[in-house]
Amino acid sequence: MKKISFLALTFLAIASTISAQTKQPMEMKPEMTEIWEPEVPVVTPGRTAADAPSDAIILFDGNDLSKEWTNAEGGLPGWKVADGCVTVVKGAGIIKTKKLFDDCQLHIEWRTPAKVEGESQGRGNSGIFMQERYEVQVLDSYNNRTYRNGQAGSIYKQYAPLVNVCKAPGEWQSYDIIYTAPRFNNDGTYFTRPAITILQNGVLIQNHVELRGPTQYIGIPEYFVEKHGAAAIVLQDHGNPVSFRNIWIRKL
Amino acid sequence: MKKISFLALTFLAIASTISAQTKQPMEMKPEMTEIWEPEVPVVTPGRTAADAPSDAIILFDGNDLSKEWTNAEGGLPGWKVADGCVTVVKGAGIIKTKKLFDDCQLHIEWRTPAKVEGESQGRGNSGIFMQERYEVQVLDSYNNRTYRNGQAGSIYKQYAPLVNVCKAPGEWQSYDIIYTAPRFNNDGTYFTRPAITILQNGVLIQNHVELRGPTQYIGIPEYFVEKHGAAAIVLQDHGNPVSFRNIWIRKL
Amino acid sequence: MKKISFLALTFLAIASTISAQTKQPMEMKPEMTEIWEPEVPVVTPGRTAADAPSDAIILFDGNDLSKEWTNAEGGLPGWKVADGCVTVVKGAGIIKTKKLFDDCQLHIEWRTPAKVEGESQGRGNSGIFMQERYEVQVLDSYNNRTYRNGQAGSIYKQYAPLVNVCKAPGEWQSYDIIYTAPRFNNDGTYFTRPAITILQNGVLIQNHVELRGPTQYIGIPEYFVEKHGAAAIVLQDHGNPVSFRNIWIRKL
Amino acid sequence: MKKISFLALTFLAIASTISAQTKQPMEMKPEMTEIWEPEVPVVTPGRTAADAPSDAIILFDGNDLSKEWTNAEGGLPGWKVADGCVTVVKGAGIIKTKKLFDDCQLHIEWRTPAKVEGESQGRGNSGIFMQERYEVQVLDSYNNRTYRNGQAGSIYKQYAPLVNVCKAPGEWQSYDIIYTAPRFNNDGTYFTRPAITILQNGVLIQNHVELRGPTQYIGIPEYFVEKHGAAAIVLQDHGNPVSFRNIWIRKL
Repeated sequence: MKKISFLALTFLAIASTISAQTKQPMEMKPEMTEIWEPEVPVVTPGRTAADAPSDAIILFDGNDLSKEWTNAEGGLPGWKVADGCVTVVKGAGIIKTKKLFDDCQLHIEWRTPAKVEGESQGRGNSGIFMQERYEVQVLDSYNNRTYRNGQAGSIYKQYAPLVNVCKAPGEWQSYDIIYTAPRFNNDGTYFTRPAITILQNGVLIQNHVELRGPTQYIGIPEYFVEKHGAAAIVLQDHGNPVSFRNIWIRKL
Repeated sequence: MKKISFLALTFLAIASTISAQTKQPMEMKPEMTEIWEPEVPVVTPGRTAADAPSDAIILFDGNDLSKEWTNAEGGLPGWKVADGCVTVVKGAGIIKTKKLFDDCQLHIEWRTPAKVEGESQGRGNSGIFMQERYEVQVLDSYNNRTYRNGQAGSIYKQYAPLVNVCKAPGEWQSYDIIYTAPRFNNDGTYFTRPAITILQNGVLIQNHVELRGPTQYIGIPEYFVEKHGAAAIVLQDHGNPVSFRNIWIRKL
Repeated sequence: MKKISFLALTFLAIASTISAQTKQPMEMKPEMTEIWEPEVPVVTPGRTAADAPSDAIILFDGNDLSKEWTNAEGGLPGWKVADGCVTVVKGAGIIKTKKLFDDCQLHIEWRTPAKVEGESQGRGNSGIFMQERYEVQVLDSYNNRTYRNGQAGSIYKQYAPLVNVCKAPGEWQSYDIIYTAPRFNNDGTYFTRPAITILQNGVLIQNHVELRGPTQYIGIPEYFVEKHGAAAIVLQDHGNPVSFRNIWIRKL
Repeated sequence: MKKISFLALTFLAIASTISAQTKQPMEMKPEMTEIWEPEVPVVTPGRTAADAPSDAIILFDGNDLSKEWTNAEGGLPGWKVADGCVTVVKGAGIIKTKKLFDDCQLHIEWRTPAKVEGESQGRGNSGIFMQERYEVQVLDSYNNRTYRNGQAGSIYKQYAPLVNVCKAPGEWQSYDIIYTAPRFNNDGTYFTRPAITILQNGVLIQNHVELRGPTQYIGIPEYFVEKHGAAAIVLQDHGNPVSFRNIWIRKL
């Protein structure tokens, strides 16, 4: 807006009424609340939501995994690349990014096996760890009841997703993750907690939730908080052949 | 995850080392931190990011505007519907939803005129008001410098966008807006401020920013804070033929 | 301040330097950021920190307990009033205020028995429950080790105090508690969490910590969150003859 | 608490009822939520609220000002020390601490002249700057109307105090200030804003308010945000003979 909208006019009218009785701030001019500097940096968006914008690091383009990823020991990642996606190889262990990240926007697409096997946590299970510590659960949660704080889109054992907006097994799904890394006090406790917002398939499932601590399979997350800096994005090998594609990340 | 990940194993190893010297909490079992109830509600996602999920209210489907919208006076909206989109008619004034909203996720697509006219605030200007008060700016900000807190994607006169990720005039662009309505103290001041997260064309441009008050063309937003409840979504007539389509909203 | 301080002058100097290169906001006048209305309400402070200010409700003045307090069933409180203070009577059960509170500032003084008996949680144990649910621990923590999230000044089983600033058994100590009640979503989950700041004997021991849920002796606080409104202040009978005095509260 | 309180019993009863129908988390033991390490550090409180606790830095003990303070240029402070307090000398300029602080608890007592002269901002005006930038106003606001965001206890030009709990001219008053320093993004914007809680004469007047930017006599605080670290506490010379005493600070 620049001209005075109908809303502003309403407010001005109210303000005029009040000012007969009470002392108002001295009237300002519109230009006084314009901030011109610095200019906002320009970014070219991707053609679709799956495509990386110009300021993103492409973590996986469908072909070369070894450019940006290693296995747990820093060696070649043992997962299978085919048909423009990468698939967990049971027993090959996790893969992790060579680059380290803290605050970021991460786009990632995933697919659980079309052939349904197992149930609850045993079906299409994998996970995305932010800063190597904070897991966004990947699971086949389509007609597959499990504990709510462990289903797809949960911050594992900390926050259930707001809704279960999973697609069927064998279909590609997307996570858009907005991640704010924790800041620490000198004694290693959190000054601010890690915060996560997630859209799954375009639908909000986590709304700026603040984590209690690193993901724990057993016990109390707070107990495991310790100071850390930027760290890798980790994808989990949970033994199920879950696939990933179109992985890009923007540092915030 | 369900089995113990390499990360958890690391932590357990650390924990064991510590426990030789200090008193640890009694060991827990994995099941103790599983929350099963209530079951997370199921939502069917749209086919693409533009399509409404099953729990959304479709505010505009490309055809009938009068079902969900009125003009400022509650009468028929005077904007033009054609080719699956609705376009501002200069002088017809704002349009607003019949339904009222507070916390919500809003998907909306917009297009500024392919024929470039005017500059700064005069080019492709419109706006989206949350709760009739808080404006997300719509503007042709493609090669069109203006004040940073007034360009496309700004929370008008309060927050510049993190990046300028605008498409060219004549191209469709999307906003995915996550809006948290303010809560009020009894005296009409904010208990919590309105908070907004926005992705434009899939790229984060506002990250949970907290507003100072209702949008003001002139003056100090705080001065205009007053208690309000759910309210309409308003689209602004700023005199430029900006178009909108694929508008859907989810109550949070 | 009113005249331009040395600091402001410094900033203005910096601003002048910048403005040679970049576009600045139009210059304002000092009066434009003065807010005059409404007038801030006047309160008369107490003579000392122990004395109630003029807008406080005096919950216990050293004499009459039954005016503002009942036992758990709403009957006469069974605790002993003598020497200007009230003392827990073992087995008489809790006492609670007749009035209900949400956001508030609470001043309360307490004393654990001069004769030291028991250890850990068994020594001088009582508690102050905000909104009948959220316990600020009262304990003789002077040379009496217990779990850190259960000692005096802890938010029981949720937050240890920043420091242990306890006086010796038999001495009077003060808590100044600033309490922000939770707000709720319609589904009974927290919109904002309860938040507590505490000064013990004038020293900060809790700094705006946000609670996970109602106090739980066993288990996970989150599991017990349910929508509630204003509620009583409760003092706990834990079997030890802890005394209280100078109790006043201000609604915020 | 340690034994199960009446409240916990209520919850357990509710939980039992629910568990007939739904799946509950596996039952825990009380010891599982006890955190023992590390031990909370012990601090000896002052005898009264005016006296420094054992972990405080005494910034002014009533006698020697030059030990902890300088003037603006780093030289000897030109203010007058007498009768256990220090008084502004008009024209001597500000004084500031030699030590630098970020997060802290500050106790300070102040007195405006018993002889009332001037009005509005001209009566008993001084100020306390946190990190050399963020002013807590000192003013004779006893029967002295001024703009609400400029009176005693205001965060100057940003937040009016919740109540006006000033004592009369010539009487000693106290501020207990809990200050959280800002954290910064790499580009010099705030990651978290400065936050302040203040008790004046034992009464809450600022409740964890978050600042918009450095204090500005003229203009928009946001415009002056720039990255900074720990900095001095500054007391302002505004030309009025305001006195200070019992100044101590604790690093948080």
